[in-house]
Amino acid sequence: MPKLSRIGEFSLIQKIQNWCKKREKIKNSKPYKIIVPTGDDAFVAKLTSNTQLVVTTDTMVEGTHFDLNWKSSYLSLKELWYCLGYKAMAMNLSDCAAMGHVEPLFAFATLGVNGDISVDCVDKLYLGMLQLAQKQQILFAGGDTIRSEKSIISITVVGKLKSSFPITRCGAKVGETIMATGPLGLAYCGLKILNNKEKLKNSSWKSLVYKQLKPEPKLKESEILINKDFLATAMIDTSDDLLTSLEILKEKSSVGFEIQLEKVPIPEVLKNYCLKSHLSPYQILIHGGEDYQLLFTCSPNKVKNIQKKIASSFVLGKVKEKSFGIQFKMGEKTVQFKNLGFQHF
Amino acid sequence: MPKLSRIGEFSLIQKIQNWCKKREKIKNSKPYKIIVPTGDDAFVAKLTSNTQLVVTTDTMVEGTHFDLNWKSSYLSLKELWYCLGYKAMAMNLSDCAAMGHVEPLFAFATLGVNGDISVDCVDKLYLGMLQLAQKQQILFAGGDTIRSEKSIISITVVGKLKSSFPITRCGAKVGETIMATGPLGLAYCGLKILNNKEKLKNSSWKSLVYKQLKPEPKLKESEILINKDFLATAMIDTSDDLLTSLEILKEKSSVGFEIQLEKVPIPEVLKNYCLKSHLSPYQILIHGGEDYQLLFTCSPNKVKNIQKKIASSFVLGKVKEKSFGIQFKMGEKTVQFKNLGFQHF
Repeated sequence: MPKLSRIGEFSLIQKIQNWCKKREKIKNSKPYKIIVPTGDDAFVAKLTSNTQLVVTTDTMVEGTHFDLNWKSSYLSLKELWYCLGYKAMAMNLSDCAAMGHVEPLFAFATLGVNGDISVDCVDKLYLGMLQLAQKQQILFAGGDTIRSEKSIISITVVGKLKSSFPITRCGAKVGETIMATGPLGLAYCGLKILNNKEKLKNSSWKSLVYKQLKPEPKLKESEILINKDFLATAMIDTSDDLLTSLEILKEKSSVGFEIQLEKVPIPEVLKNYCLKSHLSPYQILIHGGEDYQLLFTCSPNKVKNIQKKIASSFVLGKVKEKSFGIQFKMGEKTVQFKNLGFQHF
Repeated sequence: MPKLSRIGEFSLIQKIQNWCKKREKIKNSKPYKIIVPTGDDAFVAKLTSNTQLVVTTDTMVEGTHFDLNWKSSYLSLKELWYCLGYKAMAMNLSDCAAMGHVEPLFAFATLGVNGDISVDCVDKLYLGMLQLAQKQQILFAGGDTIRSEKSIISITVVGKLKSSFPITRCGAKVGETIMATGPLGLAYCGLKILNNKEKLKNSSWKSLVYKQLKPEPKLKESEILINKDFLATAMIDTSDDLLTSLEILKEKSSVGFEIQLEKVPIPEVLKNYCLKSHLSPYQILIHGGEDYQLLFTCSPNKVKNIQKKIASSFVLGKVKEKSFGIQFKMGEKTVQFKNLGFQHF
């Protein structure tokens, strides 16, 4: 049998989803109905006539998702731990947001650390988690602590769906518009600055670092997007890069996408970073993940309403037939981008 | 600030529980009531008048909780991965069992592995998780996959409390009896055999290895123990060793314990292993964890009923005043045991 590195992350996820589908063996007498099975941003099941439970879990591991060497002259180790706590919570809340109007209720955190970590850093980690939990009125309800050579921060959030139905990845229809709630690519620049230990050329670059380390989950935006005047038909969060997110929506909704790159706003700070680093802003916005924006489709007649209500939102392009695939255009010209998306294995 | 190794695991857990207690800042308008806060085997909250949600999470990390070098002439790497999946699920279900009559509904698994792991091993891991999930009619509802140098298996189980109230760690009363659902110390012998790469002296020793690797959660026993004819007043699972479990019950219930060691059954296989390994069976049953039995207190007049219904159960001793502390007796003589319990940091 091959190694995981040979089959890749998406084959592994596919395998796991197939295992999950063996659920028909579970008796029908169970006191719930599955609304959104595994394979979306979060799992949704109807427990009682008025309770739709939402569950999501996300984990960060040292060496894969973060590096304690990111500490620098402008980012102390303690502040880094604070941000890691904040981000671990944000990742889960972003998954909740991507399902529509969710009220996150309880968060459970598993912390794996070795004995050499200072108690101060652990304090800051929990402070980061708790500050975001409290901002969103979520009860931090416990978890688990374990010893692990490399640090692990794993959070599970349990919540309730407030709307009568969720927004899944499956609802995009040909002729609709595809939009994002805000700028893409910024978190990736922050990651590059941290990894390359780049000196901050100007104060606005620090904002890029914080886009990577302290993302804000788009819970308010998703609450808007479930309303009939703004209704999103399919939705996913941009934890992955834009191309990967589009590919997931494409598979799940059986559609294609035409992305009009010249319409996509490139923030000044991204432009400046790219100029000084000799990078292409388009390459970054297509391949840089972890912005935790919402990527969604909607009827073209909702676009104005949405842009009035979510000022940072913008149109990326159109939903096309599946056979169209994913095409990036600059004006009339098709631009080729190889998938450089992050593959875990 | 000191390192974690200096303050130890229980101080860290205490810190986390204090952070959790900051819940008063969460608005009272929340649509739930906390029934069992953090600090018990699982968290319980009343979501609606007839839905008490139970959530628990447990994680195993390579190097801390298991070792891939455990594979041997009688345990292939694939079988080891199968067992690890089974055990990760069992640990969580044991936490559910320790709350009373719980119906586990959904399981979410986070798997952290590096690309060198064979796909076959991952298959076996999920097979182990799924087999136990299906046996207990639990829906395997997804999770997360991440890259991690050291393997990580983390499971969260969400369920419903079937009885009207849970059994917590706080209900033990002076004069009651303390019992266990089955033998203690066997899993620890299995761990020693695996760690020391001991050759199996006889086939019964293999059963010790499986006590460590493939524990059975005591869901049926806990369903019995919530019934008024058998009612447990306080309960904890023996994921930790006996002494640590007693210390937790002591703190939570504000009582003491007198353990009558000569009453505690020592299974033949434990006796034989100890004889050949020059170990004291009492030392092992006090300090060896991971048996995933239930340790519980009850009124002395329930003991006969319980032993009829749960054949493997036995009396450990009596609940005493808090000032009595925890005393182990052999006949009239008090025996001293230093706490050698597993401290993570």
